Amino acid sequence: MTDTATRPAPGTSSSTGRTGPVRLLDTARTTLVPATGGRITGGLWAERRRVNREVSVTTGWDRLHEAGNFLNLELAAGQQPGQAYVGSLPFLDSDLYKWLEAVAWTFADPDLDEAGEARLEEFLTTSARLLEAAQADDGYLDSYFQVNFPGERFVQLAWGHELYCAGHLIQAAVALNRTRGDARLLDVARRVADLVVRSFGSEEGRVDGICGHPEVETALVELYRETGEQSYLDAARYFVDRRGHQLLGGHGFGAHYFQDHTPVREATSVEGHSVRQVYLLAGVADLYVEDGDDTLREAADRLWHEMVATKTYVTGGIGTHHTDEAFGDPYELTNERSYCETCAAIGSVMFSWRMLMITGEARYADLVERTLYNGFLAGLSLDGQRYIYANPLQVREGHMAGGNDRDYARKPWFKCACCPPNVMRTLASLEHYVVLGGADGLRVHQFVPGSWTAPVGDAEASVSVVTDYPWAGRVAVTVDASPGTWGLTVRVPHWAGGATLTVNGEPVTADVADGWASVTRAWEPGDTLVLDLPLEPRLTRADSRVDADRASVALERGPLVYCFEAVDNPGHRLDDVVVDVAGPVATASTDAALPDDVVTLAAQGRVRPRPTEGWWPYADARSPEPGDGEAVTLTAVPYYVWGNRAPGAMRIWTPAG
Amino acid sequence: MTDTATRPAPGTSSSTGRTGPVRLLDTARTTLVPATGGRITGGLWAERRRVNREVSVTTGWDRLHEAGNFLNLELAAGQQPGQAYVGSLPFLDSDLYKWLEAVAWTFADPDLDEAGEARLEEFLTTSARLLEAAQADDGYLDSYFQVNFPGERFVQLAWGHELYCAGHLIQAAVALNRTRGDARLLDVARRVADLVVRSFGSEEGRVDGICGHPEVETALVELYRETGEQSYLDAARYFVDRRGHQLLGGHGFGAHYFQDHTPVREATSVEGHSVRQVYLLAGVADLYVEDGDDTLREAADRLWHEMVATKTYVTGGIGTHHTDEAFGDPYELTNERSYCETCAAIGSVMFSWRMLMITGEARYADLVERTLYNGFLAGLSLDGQRYIYANPLQVREGHMAGGNDRDYARKPWFKCACCPPNVMRTLASLEHYVVLGGADGLRVHQFVPGSWTAPVGDAEASVSVVTDYPWAGRVAVTVDASPGTWGLTVRVPHWAGGATLTVNGEPVTADVADGWASVTRAWEPGDTLVLDLPLEPRLTRADSRVDADRASVALERGPLVYCFEAVDNPGHRLDDVVVDVAGPVATASTDAALPDDVVTLAAQGRVRPRPTEGWWPYADARSPEPGDGEAVTLTAVPYYVWGNRAPGAMRIWTPAG
Repeated sequence: MTDTATRPAPGTSSSTGRTGPVRLLDTARTTLVPATGGRITGGLWAERRRVNREVSVTTGWDRLHEAGNFLNLELAAGQQPGQAYVGSLPFLDSDLYKWLEAVAWTFADPDLDEAGEARLEEFLTTSARLLEAAQADDGYLDSYFQVNFPGERFVQLAWGHELYCAGHLIQAAVALNRTRGDARLLDVARRVADLVVRSFGSEEGRVDGICGHPEVETALVELYRETGEQSYLDAARYFVDRRGHQLLGGHGFGAHYFQDHTPVREATSVEGHSVRQVYLLAGVADLYVEDGDDTLREAADRLWHEMVATKTYVTGGIGTHHTDEAFGDPYELTNERSYCETCAAIGSVMFSWRMLMITGEARYADLVERTLYNGFLAGLSLDGQRYIYANPLQVREGHMAGGNDRDYARKPWFKCACCPPNVMRTLASLEHYVVLGGADGLRVHQFVPGSWTAPVGDAEASVSVVTDYPWAGRVAVTVDASPGTWGLTVRVPHWAGGATLTVNGEPVTADVADGWASVTRAWEPGDTLVLDLPLEPRLTRADSRVDADRASVALERGPLVYCFEAVDNPGHRLDDVVVDVAGPVATASTDAALPDDVVTLAAQGRVRPRPTEGWWPYADARSPEPGDGEAVTLTAVPYYVWGNRAPGAMRIWTPAG
Repeated sequence: MTDTATRPAPGTSSSTGRTGPVRLLDTARTTLVPATGGRITGGLWAERRRVNREVSVTTGWDRLHEAGNFLNLELAAGQQPGQAYVGSLPFLDSDLYKWLEAVAWTFADPDLDEAGEARLEEFLTTSARLLEAAQADDGYLDSYFQVNFPGERFVQLAWGHELYCAGHLIQAAVALNRTRGDARLLDVARRVADLVVRSFGSEEGRVDGICGHPEVETALVELYRETGEQSYLDAARYFVDRRGHQLLGGHGFGAHYFQDHTPVREATSVEGHSVRQVYLLAGVADLYVEDGDDTLREAADRLWHEMVATKTYVTGGIGTHHTDEAFGDPYELTNERSYCETCAAIGSVMFSWRMLMITGEARYADLVERTLYNGFLAGLSLDGQRYIYANPLQVREGHMAGGNDRDYARKPWFKCACCPPNVMRTLASLEHYVVLGGADGLRVHQFVPGSWTAPVGDAEASVSVVTDYPWAGRVAVTVDASPGTWGLTVRVPHWAGGATLTVNGEPVTADVADGWASVTRAWEPGDTLVLDLPLEPRLTRADSRVDADRASVALERGPLVYCFEAVDNPGHRLDDVVVDVAGPVATASTDAALPDDVVTLAAQGRVRPRPTEGWWPYADARSPEPGDGEAVTLTAVPYYVWGNRAPGAMRIWTPAG
């Protein structure tokens, strides 16, 4: 382990030590503000980050070389004469940028060792030189267009992904500047951003258009925050404002796909491609923070609630349709064909995290937690080498990997590899999503071992967290530095009835309201607030309008959604099992064969006899059912663990018996 | 109405008067053989056929001109210099061919009047001249390749659809030759078929390949039957045998999509694109009939049963996935996103009809009936002017026509317009699917008013059918011509417990077995057998493995599947209704506002209170439900009627209360 003190001294722009993914210039428009210098030092997430650092990011270099992403940029740089551009997708550069962002954030990982740091440095140096070489004199940088359509710029906006790629480059550049004070990528990204600023606008002679895939909006606001350059914020505002006026022309997908059917301020429902929708809304939230335009805040808030109340899976996953990777109708949440793209879960976290800071409301943190532990984490194999693009909530007995989109096994990489490096950058920056500061104190909204410093009024407070969460419910928060009297606030998740608090071992009466428990006192270094969350397994049902979950239950414990997997239930056909909802819910135990000290659950159920086999699978509703079936004990594992051991059936929602 | 005696005298090839879509040369391999000269003279289907004849086929001419199908062939004929080929899809010619097949069959419609016949004659003459002009000297005819890739032939087999188009041309040609003895299309089609025969094969110098979309297999067998030319049958056998060896190379869809993943004799499940699968199996059944290869019969039988028992909706619809228009896993039959392409229902009827003749088993006729009345008929608007491509079993409250594939409203035509002319040709040839002959008698397997003649042993018997089916359960079959002692057999549908029979008003004891009731006697002209089928409304449940239908019921009456539609249930939110399964099932009445003397059903139910609205749609499974809700009477209409009056919610499967 490397002492962080040996790291390169932070540059001017990161001299505040703020390494959060969102740096707010005007905090007056947020209730909560980012913590700084967070360190995750143990537990489930530290282990996932170790795997990310040692395996995923490291092998990402190889995958990006094998998949041609590096070659394509080398072609743009004129370094590989005679070679052909690899792939027909216009967004391959963004895979490399997201991976670079993961590299950049990983420099701040307290567990990064010297060898790892040297490897990252090599990755970074090679990549930065390549981008510098590939960038055109006027700042243009997009290998797809430079190689395949030389001179063509900002014309194929619906599908060209030029601004999307620019956005991811900007985010990587901001990350590197923030963690290391290293402006190599930032210089490249600013030249791109300056070109975008010069090229787009409603004025005569400029391109009046938007990108088919939102992303540049949030990136430009971040770049404005990093640099103070007003034109970046103005460009972000322009792109948000111009969306919804059918500038894209549909491109065969229809305007909804691109959220170009109606201006965001007028939208009443999330629609179309789910990743595009939540990336856009993250940018809208960012723009509100800087501009203070309440119509943006209202739109973001309205759409978040519509999305969460009617179009979000119990895993936090979003996007029902495989076709167009799109949101479905309200309550259309089919399990067998849930799309739940891993990138959409990441976009949901980006959006909710910004809404949490804006509003201070715990529900946003609740969804961040649920999505991180379930819909997001399931997208990566435990060994960090394989990814899943669409996360099903149910895989059937006899599921066959036939056809284009029926293979639910994780894979080392994809032709469209947006998810793997998105997972990497999210894990590499996870410490940002744990603690927030505010006018009246510090809030621990995720329960992760480590240490954080957050602004409290005009000062700062520091805390350390010790916990075995999510396996155990005790979360100990010790004050490391205190600016006097302030509120130490912990989130009480919406599922956690009966949570208790102590301070230095003594029960305390906390202010409990709206998902937060707060103790305000003159905190001294060494004081410890302990939150005890009940982790009894829970049986959950869905809103009656969710047809797919009718008469079914999901098993949950703490923030984790559980599933039954064939490998743990040999001999029981998962298409036929029923969970007993009348008896005890489940008992918990650990399974040494699984990583992360995983707690498994044992639930009582039955294996329902199958109907008499006939040629026709429908029968008189009043004919006798084929009996109760054999009583069985069913083993459930956290959803994020599924699909790592053996192929087979899996289900979250299970008929209630 | 024109007396059919005034029609052009049938030519040599139709001198038998057999106008069935399948003409069997070797009937030894079928249990049942086609009836001939069938006439549908009243009832629901006569009205649907009137609309088809007067509206759909007639406006089809306009639609095919507007959509460019005629122009494209004119380009191939060199008649429109300077014009550009319309559309990027390689199968537009087939739309015109299927429409021509509808024109051809309509000539045999007893209700066709002189004006209508003259119109069809004009359609036909113009089209035949165009095809003659477009056809190359060596017989090649495919406007897409002739115009866009001159000289390129049988190279883009996975997606080129050349043989698929050829197959539909052949079927139109056979139909015209059969109804009118008019060989104009047949001459064109034979030149195409002869080129196919010369071009394909495993021998050196030939193309060793198959078409990405099966269709030519069944067409070539029919052409062999029509002409006696052995090489057509040999070509059909070659195409069936060579499928499943990955000759197509996947083309991005994967081999399953094309049923090219495994040879049909080894397949154990229907897979991939559902229309392709059932078209292929119709050809396999045809080939068995001519070749007597039991391995083909076994494969077709095995795959039919796997499809029907595990992958068929209660409407008879098939194809669960929008992506790739494909079958899902067994029991994966989601209602909100049922694909159920109208063409797939037609292909299912084609396949089942052939299996019915081969096996004589009533279950095949049961599925033909169910599919025609529900999954097929819903594909066409009542006014014959609009079509639906994908037939959902559920449309939600608040469904929005957002995005590419979320519009469930019927449309006048499609960019990919395979379904409309497919509906036309099916309705135009519907009389073929009613009566069959056999060694021991004549079978009425569908209940449609009209008259039919069928082979009975070496002779023929004729019957007339009078019925108000499907609205009433009485079916009267009167003998018009009798060859002595033979069995008059009627199907007793699988849902019809308690059916009774009389002959000339007297109860009879029939041989009842396996879905058939048969009375063998020395039938005299004028004798009438009356079948009374119980038409009490039924509540149906699905196999417990069909998760989408869990704890739900469907309402059926006779062959009709019913649905609840918002327009009939104002004020009741269909997302919230529950059907009472303990009380009386439903009462039937007619609705004068609907065509076809439609019988509607009134079921008792409740409107379930919605859960308290919160930000998160999942709750403790043991928390109290929000109460029983208001008792309501719900109105159901036949599924085929849905979507004709007003947009709004619709559902077949409804929670059982």
